[in-house]
Amino acid sequence: MKHSSLSLAFAKGLALLSVLLLSFSAQAQPKAAITRVDPTNWWVGMKNQNLQLLVYGPQAGTYSYSIDYPGVELVKTHKVESPNYAFLDLTIAASAKPGSFTIKGQNGKQKLSRKYELKARTQEPKAQGVTSADFIYLVLPDRFSNGDPKNDQFKDMADPKADRNNPFLRHGGDIQGIQNHLDYFQDLGVTALWLNPVIENNQPLTDEGGQMRSAYHGYAFTDHYAVDKRLGGNEVYRKFVQAAHAKGLKVVQDAVYNHVGINHWFIKDQPSKDWVHQFPAYTNTSHKFQPLIDPNGSKADWTVMMNGWFTPFMPDLNQNNPLVAKYLIQNAIWTVENFGIDAWRIDTYMYNDDQFMNDCNQALLNEYPNIHIFGEAWVNNVIAQSRFTRNTINFPFKSNQPGTLDFVLFNAMNDALNQKFGWDEGVSKVHQTLAQDAVYQDPMKLVTFLDNHDMNRYFSVIGEDFDKYKMGLTWLLTTRGIPSLYYGTEILMKNFKDPSDAEVRRDFPGGFAGDKENKFTAAGRNARENEAFNFVKKLATYRKNTPALHSGKLMQFVPQEGLYVYFRYDGSKTVMVATNTTDKEADMKTERFAERLNGFTKGKNILTDASLNNLATIKVPAKTALVLELQ
Amino acid sequence: MKHSSLSLAFAKGLALLSVLLLSFSAQAQPKAAITRVDPTNWWVGMKNQNLQLLVYGPQAGTYSYSIDYPGVELVKTHKVESPNYAFLDLTIAASAKPGSFTIKGQNGKQKLSRKYELKARTQEPKAQGVTSADFIYLVLPDRFSNGDPKNDQFKDMADPKADRNNPFLRHGGDIQGIQNHLDYFQDLGVTALWLNPVIENNQPLTDEGGQMRSAYHGYAFTDHYAVDKRLGGNEVYRKFVQAAHAKGLKVVQDAVYNHVGINHWFIKDQPSKDWVHQFPAYTNTSHKFQPLIDPNGSKADWTVMMNGWFTPFMPDLNQNNPLVAKYLIQNAIWTVENFGIDAWRIDTYMYNDDQFMNDCNQALLNEYPNIHIFGEAWVNNVIAQSRFTRNTINFPFKSNQPGTLDFVLFNAMNDALNQKFGWDEGVSKVHQTLAQDAVYQDPMKLVTFLDNHDMNRYFSVIGEDFDKYKMGLTWLLTTRGIPSLYYGTEILMKNFKDPSDAEVRRDFPGGFAGDKENKFTAAGRNARENEAFNFVKKLATYRKNTPALHSGKLMQFVPQEGLYVYFRYDGSKTVMVATNTTDKEADMKTERFAERLNGFTKGKNILTDASLNNLATIKVPAKTALVLELQ
Repeated sequence: MKHSSLSLAFAKGLALLSVLLLSFSAQAQPKAAITRVDPTNWWVGMKNQNLQLLVYGPQAGTYSYSIDYPGVELVKTHKVESPNYAFLDLTIAASAKPGSFTIKGQNGKQKLSRKYELKARTQEPKAQGVTSADFIYLVLPDRFSNGDPKNDQFKDMADPKADRNNPFLRHGGDIQGIQNHLDYFQDLGVTALWLNPVIENNQPLTDEGGQMRSAYHGYAFTDHYAVDKRLGGNEVYRKFVQAAHAKGLKVVQDAVYNHVGINHWFIKDQPSKDWVHQFPAYTNTSHKFQPLIDPNGSKADWTVMMNGWFTPFMPDLNQNNPLVAKYLIQNAIWTVENFGIDAWRIDTYMYNDDQFMNDCNQALLNEYPNIHIFGEAWVNNVIAQSRFTRNTINFPFKSNQPGTLDFVLFNAMNDALNQKFGWDEGVSKVHQTLAQDAVYQDPMKLVTFLDNHDMNRYFSVIGEDFDKYKMGLTWLLTTRGIPSLYYGTEILMKNFKDPSDAEVRRDFPGGFAGDKENKFTAAGRNARENEAFNFVKKLATYRKNTPALHSGKLMQFVPQEGLYVYFRYDGSKTVMVATNTTDKEADMKTERFAERLNGFTKGKNILTDASLNNLATIKVPAKTALVLELQ
Repeated sequence: MKHSSLSLAFAKGLALLSVLLLSFSAQAQPKAAITRVDPTNWWVGMKNQNLQLLVYGPQAGTYSYSIDYPGVELVKTHKVESPNYAFLDLTIAASAKPGSFTIKGQNGKQKLSRKYELKARTQEPKAQGVTSADFIYLVLPDRFSNGDPKNDQFKDMADPKADRNNPFLRHGGDIQGIQNHLDYFQDLGVTALWLNPVIENNQPLTDEGGQMRSAYHGYAFTDHYAVDKRLGGNEVYRKFVQAAHAKGLKVVQDAVYNHVGINHWFIKDQPSKDWVHQFPAYTNTSHKFQPLIDPNGSKADWTVMMNGWFTPFMPDLNQNNPLVAKYLIQNAIWTVENFGIDAWRIDTYMYNDDQFMNDCNQALLNEYPNIHIFGEAWVNNVIAQSRFTRNTINFPFKSNQPGTLDFVLFNAMNDALNQKFGWDEGVSKVHQTLAQDAVYQDPMKLVTFLDNHDMNRYFSVIGEDFDKYKMGLTWLLTTRGIPSLYYGTEILMKNFKDPSDAEVRRDFPGGFAGDKENKFTAAGRNARENEAFNFVKKLATYRKNTPALHSGKLMQFVPQEGLYVYFRYDGSKTVMVATNTTDKEADMKTERFAERLNGFTKGKNILTDASLNNLATIKVPAKTALVLELQ
């Protein structure tokens, strides 16, 4: 989720606040009932034997509950301000068998009941994690490929229209469309798919003074337990994950804890006032992260950053409310277990409550020790970035997040591609950023990238310079960390965010019926696009087969005169990456790299397959990163 | 010591190396003798009872030594490659009395002897430290004031001429000249004087292809135990410190451990090849600090940075040689004890060996628990800066240095004054820098500054904008840390380094006989200079009397629209600094500062003495930092 504009009408904010408050006022009472229970099911045999059920329906909170099932005990019931909620704390013994039980409610003579299923856990692969051996591909599901035209639009949704000519409406892309191209990802050398959120976003498209508020991006959840039916729904998603796994592709879930869409069912009927953060007047987050790390910071700035809303349409959840926290944590566990998710990308990480995030991460790690978790913390310095992952700094709060997206290296790589080389400029920025890795417990767990769905596209940022394109991709695929690629970069998709984010989220050509071009096939790509695709493929494939690029150490040398050299090496292989960021071919003397060149006499250029028979001086063309496997 | 140019002739380097190596070759042998012993004296009653004497003279290393004095024991004698050195390890018992003993040498029938004095320690103040209650004033002794024209030049020195018309020759400024203006410093509100090095620099002025190599700056020591006689010599310096102390002014010593001048007596006759760092060919330091902090760094880059020479005229001492290390450490102790030094500024801190620096710092702190030590680490990010002081990062090497010069805040304040305000630009840089203070064990111990002897002068950098001048000085004197001011800033001295550093090291007007102007007096300053002087004086004096600005906490708020507000506060006082960095007067609403404004209804503008009777909205003129004492 990117920083959003602060251009909000104060009156609009007040109006929304009124809506929220009004939800508590008396209305015509429907018949008492349980209309939903979250999590929508659970499993026997989970490590954590506690489960809290949210029981929802008219007057559901005015009933007393009982459950009669071997191994299941109802320990406690929590009531909240709204009469429509009860929260039931259960324990599920290791001995409990799969099956269904009835949640029984009684209020005087009136009774309620609802079936609840405890499933057996499947043995399907799940929570495999992603590591620096992986190569992640980020897809915006609505804009990639339409595999099922029947689910493009639904009259009963807040945004009932789909229209590929409107950048802000749904375009019809879906999970089936992604599944249809698993061979394409495999061919490219991708090993993991990260989808922008697939969870229901039943939000309307609105025009806020010329600024369009849409939710095709997926970051405004309206039901945590439903995959958006325009993307295919729960069963399609489950099958997609299975199909991906069958092809050796992992799946990364994009999780959003900080906020929900204002159309979320529990926002329309809030359990309690403190379910979301509220202010006397509408208050937007400041997006200023400094108060979170600043020993000199103020509580006021901290509060606005953390508790202010992302937009008036995205209420900010109060994770200090233990019921909210448990709801979100259980949903995370449920999602991994139900769909077989391998890794967890967390939206707007630093806007979440610290302790909640640690609790949530720990709950996932307890249940799934191999899962990887990496959040989005859009910061501009390494100290701040380290604050939101496992670090080596004695901050008052210690994050337990295993990874994080590497925004600082993203910035550095962009500067390296676009600035003239200097003492602190150009590729010196990459060197200087990686030189600060001592603050991370494990920098290999950071997820690296050249752009994403919130940014100007990489190919445009570098002025559509094909040499730079290859150079940056080479760094991405050979330096430390877990590389990720935004969809379409491999076929030179371009654009700037102006006039809207939709510009950098264009449909993948060939993904939709009637597309004139099909860039999924070599025949559909032009020569340059094929060169780009094949470049990524070649590097990614080499990477996939070269453990030195996964778990090998990194050694980098101080850049000189625009030349930047680093090595990835382990006991069995040494790969040299020799970059010339200048506009002129360089004859690079290698004497100063003796530490890593010792014992090697030749090299193989893995991009051209050419042999290099003399390592003393290496010719590096202008704007080129050679990848040399030493022999 | 600034980064020096890398434009060195390779041949020149080789020639110099040959000189060094030649010093070992056989020459006509003078009569055996002890011509010097370092330290030149010692004291009884030091906490550390060990002392290592360097005994020097023709063939002095070929003798066996004995000492007969109650409480003094000669434990061990070390020999080195050169026959002219012996190193004697002594212990000096707590019971030893002040007095003199004879160092006796015997080689067969030949004998040598030399008297050595153990003095009683004086009760004079020393090692008082500097804290955030202080205000340091940095003076370049040769360029401040000539108090004794008799010591301007000496025929027996490598640079026998003084000439105020030549920027590279000595100008005649001296310690007496500084002492003559103690009232001036007091009047300005200064509490501590930091002199660029006063140690002998018996180096010639040379012209290296148009680049002048001079040593009027003091960073090329040629005798660690002699204050340069052109500055007055040892006794004058000792009396100066006493006079400063009598006026309540502390004295900061500028120490150089990394290198010496090539004319240093022990370089002309090196004890051993490994006394200095040597390379097959002359090798300059890279000045690239990243390898020192980089877990991905190379040993080669580390070595060039650490062991490369600053210039061909400044050999790089090998502090891994325990004899070198002990020589430097004992010299530091001797200097504090002999002259009564209060604090210790360390030149080129990060070029020194890590373990040596910790040992040296610890030796000083053991002997003088209140002394403050702050080094020069010219870096561009907070992680690197923290690496060279006591920090909270789990670096493989833990520095024990209590403070450091704050180069990162220096850069940020300059950007704040010269950039247009933005999300990450302008005064946001100051906010973002201070927001990273969590990496320091005690950020109050950092020494802050707006410029120094190696930089373009502050007033020029800000385009001689008097509003900016005041704004930056207000930050310097009210934010966290120990502020320091470069001489002449208070009278608007200006200039850029081009064409040479000498441009920013001009003579203080009025400090030299025959000066047409005398800026030491109000009458000699023009109206604007007096306004500047009085501004610094007013703020410094207020600071001196306001503990909230010394030991009070800092709370800063996120800058908005170019307005940056912070508070310094303790149990008894709250000072608000409200900055408007824009070009337009602002009516600043203060509601969001309630955390610190609570309980206060009025303020006093301490710069204008005006009262402020309403704190709800504060009028802040363009480019102004108001300092308001809340009431």
